[in-house]
Amino acid sequence: MRIAIDAMGGDDGPGAIVDGALVAARHLQIGLLLVGDRTTIDRELSRHPGAAALDLRILDTPDAIGMEESPTAALRRKPRASVRLAADAVRDGEAAAFFSAGHTGASVMAALGAFGRLPGVDRPALATIIPTRRKPAVLLDSGATVECRPQHLVQFALLGASYARVALGCGSPRVGLLSVGEEESKGNELTREAHRLLKSAHVDFVGNVEGRHVYAGDADVIVCDGFTGNVTLKISEGLVDAVEALLHDELTATFGTRVGYLLSRQAFRRFRKRVDSSEYGGAPLLGINGLCIVGHGRSSAKAVRNAVAMAARFVSQHLVEQLGRGVAAPEGLPG
Amino acid sequence: MRIAIDAMGGDDGPGAIVDGALVAARHLQIGLLLVGDRTTIDRELSRHPGAAALDLRILDTPDAIGMEESPTAALRRKPRASVRLAADAVRDGEAAAFFSAGHTGASVMAALGAFGRLPGVDRPALATIIPTRRKPAVLLDSGATVECRPQHLVQFALLGASYARVALGCGSPRVGLLSVGEEESKGNELTREAHRLLKSAHVDFVGNVEGRHVYAGDADVIVCDGFTGNVTLKISEGLVDAVEALLHDELTATFGTRVGYLLSRQAFRRFRKRVDSSEYGGAPLLGINGLCIVGHGRSSAKAVRNAVAMAARFVSQHLVEQLGRGVAAPEGLPG
Repeated sequence: MRIAIDAMGGDDGPGAIVDGALVAARHLQIGLLLVGDRTTIDRELSRHPGAAALDLRILDTPDAIGMEESPTAALRRKPRASVRLAADAVRDGEAAAFFSAGHTGASVMAALGAFGRLPGVDRPALATIIPTRRKPAVLLDSGATVECRPQHLVQFALLGASYARVALGCGSPRVGLLSVGEEESKGNELTREAHRLLKSAHVDFVGNVEGRHVYAGDADVIVCDGFTGNVTLKISEGLVDAVEALLHDELTATFGTRVGYLLSRQAFRRFRKRVDSSEYGGAPLLGINGLCIVGHGRSSAKAVRNAVAMAARFVSQHLVEQLGRGVAAPEGLPG
Repeated sequence: MRIAIDAMGGDDGPGAIVDGALVAARHLQIGLLLVGDRTTIDRELSRHPGAAALDLRILDTPDAIGMEESPTAALRRKPRASVRLAADAVRDGEAAAFFSAGHTGASVMAALGAFGRLPGVDRPALATIIPTRRKPAVLLDSGATVECRPQHLVQFALLGASYARVALGCGSPRVGLLSVGEEESKGNELTREAHRLLKSAHVDFVGNVEGRHVYAGDADVIVCDGFTGNVTLKISEGLVDAVEALLHDELTATFGTRVGYLLSRQAFRRFRKRVDSSEYGGAPLLGINGLCIVGHGRSSAKAVRNAVAMAARFVSQHLVEQLGRGVAAPEGLPG
């Protein structure tokens, strides 16, 4: 198995991408196709004495898409942009999946262009695994499709339920619609109509889920438009950071609490691990006819390692084929 | 000064509402107009021996609006619903402001019907004070107007900046637009057009604010549509609860961390106070020509006390007049 890596994406630069990908390649014994500027990649590889023993290929291109560029225009202007070549390599059978931590919109457009959509899917969705008080859940769309119509949310529900079966081993996923009240009448035009459609869709629809119940684990799959999902995840990231900082202030305020803090540090580290988004590192783009894992812009080497491992696992599990079947003919469900 | 209280709203029932309102009345030496079923209110008052010494009036009505009702239809069907009589009492000069912890949509409709809008405002917004790593900030709309057009967000920016001056003493509020990326091109149709309009509005517009920067305190006023704002706040509430539960699990997992936890309890209590939404208890509805404070559905007696105190403070500060001037002729600002 070989995974294509957009070596030029990510806020921490090619160093963190190459570092993380190499750890995954060594650990999982998989090949990599590193796509980007050869001189830069070679320089990063030279820091890794063990790299020569790995199955690495380089696809040389100087072009990359910046975070401030418009993805459609940039992909048209740069046919050899690293993210596009990585997607094309998967389409052409040179790799089984691709990973990019660059511009999310560009990854989505490149993947759509190279793979096309699964039958029955109009818009793709990024599926992010979030921790809850019970067990992990899937939130989608977390940023691929910022303008949604009600039927898109129904398609996300089908994709999300299939994904929860494969990725979380969740036998009968409960699907909730993120809204501003539990009652069917609450919400905006999009969610009210989506609610109506979801009641007769082939998923175990548990109704509207309010924000305050998302982290309680009341649903295994939480469906929303990509704008709301992205805001939700980023608010959560920022809040966890703020909570840690505020708690740290309070915990170091007096001698007694400082002693307490020293003794409880291990607990904080374990807590951090449970809520840390780099534990998953990436989110698959669902609804397209190929495998693409989108990383955080701020992808650390650890996040990249975990995202590449996620890609390898989903290749082995034939995730795309399972999603295709899930959308075409949902199994074992009411409705 | 007299504050009208919708005694029938709130998930915890009239008991918590009356308890909290009485504490505020005694502490601040203000009068109350308790609106609701007289028998129920009298029964609650009988638990308070000191109530006879307070300036209390009761406006008797058996009708209340349930959380599952459609507000427009319910208000039409129940002209004597408690929230509507409370709003009308303010309009008629019998009270200076009203508080309701009932159905948010019904409070908004009742206030709009009784007071009308401020000149220059098309839609009202609920303004919620949130803690950040620096100082408190204002997020609006947190749930009054779930479908927004770009110009509504500009009006919210003007209202929010005026509110931050009055409520937070913030001399020159920095206004941010909640979106999914910092770049102007990121976002949905609503935020992209609102961004364009805000650049030439009479506010200190600092651009898009990503969710992860909201709690960092990068802006004093964060503007968004009511759906996104409500989801944001409820996600945050739920996440703080989940974080506390997860941390508690970890902190009590071993003997060492248990000792640490005991020693750091005080810090957790102080932290709780900083992030606890009941510390404010309610959110004013901005953009209408009268004062209405909307409480959480889950309003505890403490939250009600703080919300009634907030109402009294805003009456003294002539908040509505200041907002009217802020929307009509923004002061001391670029543009």
